[in-house]
Amino acid sequence: MQAIIASTSTVHGSSYLDYLKPTLKNHFHDSEEVLFIPFARPGGISHEDYTAKASQGLKSCVKSVKGLHEFSDMKQAISEAKAIFVGGGNTFLLVKQLHELDLMKTLKRSIEHGARYLGTSAGSNICGVSMQTTNDMPIVYPPSFQALGILDFNINPHYLDADMSSTHKGETRETRIKEFQTLNSEIVIGLREGSWIKINNLEITLEGALPARIFEPGKQAYELNPNRPIKF
Amino acid sequence: MQAIIASTSTVHGSSYLDYLKPTLKNHFHDSEEVLFIPFARPGGISHEDYTAKASQGLKSCVKSVKGLHEFSDMKQAISEAKAIFVGGGNTFLLVKQLHELDLMKTLKRSIEHGARYLGTSAGSNICGVSMQTTNDMPIVYPPSFQALGILDFNINPHYLDADMSSTHKGETRETRIKEFQTLNSEIVIGLREGSWIKINNLEITLEGALPARIFEPGKQAYELNPNRPIKF
Repeated sequence: MQAIIASTSTVHGSSYLDYLKPTLKNHFHDSEEVLFIPFARPGGISHEDYTAKASQGLKSCVKSVKGLHEFSDMKQAISEAKAIFVGGGNTFLLVKQLHELDLMKTLKRSIEHGARYLGTSAGSNICGVSMQTTNDMPIVYPPSFQALGILDFNINPHYLDADMSSTHKGETRETRIKEFQTLNSEIVIGLREGSWIKINNLEITLEGALPARIFEPGKQAYELNPNRPIKF
Repeated sequence: MQAIIASTSTVHGSSYLDYLKPTLKNHFHDSEEVLFIPFARPGGISHEDYTAKASQGLKSCVKSVKGLHEFSDMKQAISEAKAIFVGGGNTFLLVKQLHELDLMKTLKRSIEHGARYLGTSAGSNICGVSMQTTNDMPIVYPPSFQALGILDFNINPHYLDADMSSTHKGETRETRIKEFQTLNSEIVIGLREGSWIKINNLEITLEGALPARIFEPGKQAYELNPNRPIKF
């Protein structure tokens, strides 16, 4: 497997996918065409508009980007793709579509068989065992919370440290993840914006400048430094 | 119906339920016993411990608090209760339990037939049409997102204004609610911490010191001042 699983598409002060460009040029260096899955529809944007945005973002990296919605046989499109990008937005919406169109297994198989994968935000969340550590609002009801499971842990994208000066009483991200682990056994990686996970065959590493926060059930949460293997 | 539907159980700098005490003394003035529904389990706390916490919080308002988990016939307990408190925690967990134990309709009927209701956070979220504007993490998979629907709109508790100085790229609360409305037709009330909705028979009002943020589909979001009727 070859995958880039990023916390966010965009970091503060730069434009869409900009901070990932050097990485993506290398990742997609022999990919002519990228199949874009626009189902997460950030802000309710249409599949067409979202695909145009992805196409613009990947312009300097690949020749062409096609939206999955343009294909009449989506399973075939995924199976035959040499490179796949699943963009961010709402994870519930993305997972609902993938399950209802029966694409989850096809997508997993395609990645396992060598399609070069890029995920950002919701598109990274689905690489985990389940989507249950998403930050998103449940704007639709998916038939299942199961995700691709190409990683054997869960991802919390856009991970945010608690703001100690805040007077807000809503749960911190750490509290939410710990609540998840009172009822589930998956390890969770809190992936800060600017961080990504790289899968290079059997090697899984944390990339970017920042450490990630690791939650193993029953242990104190701890930091993992970048450029290190992720191994439990 | 007589209900207090609060954004949060606790405001910054004071203890559990403190800011609501004058309101609750009045609300529960003729209630000897309150039935507490501890299913949302904040931080994974046990039903017993959560009920003890609720009991402590309501000590100056009512004679006794009993946890729903103490009853062998939960439907009967809810049907016969004169006062009911549903505490906060994880909305997915709360809604899953209420659906799986087939208590949603019973609870709605009991409130409609006069049981004095108190909800905080997740316990307020379920008063809306659906739980789909919760902020919580989907730590369990409920059989449905449908909620009590004693209000004909949805609630977003712990409503947070966008922090204009933030460099974080995760969606703002307003963006999330607007994404919800690209696919759903419910009006949403963003209820800030320290605010609550009061139902006094047919009169529904916004209480507390702060305005609430109102999201009507297809309209610009706007502020509603406190001590005003909520009417669409």
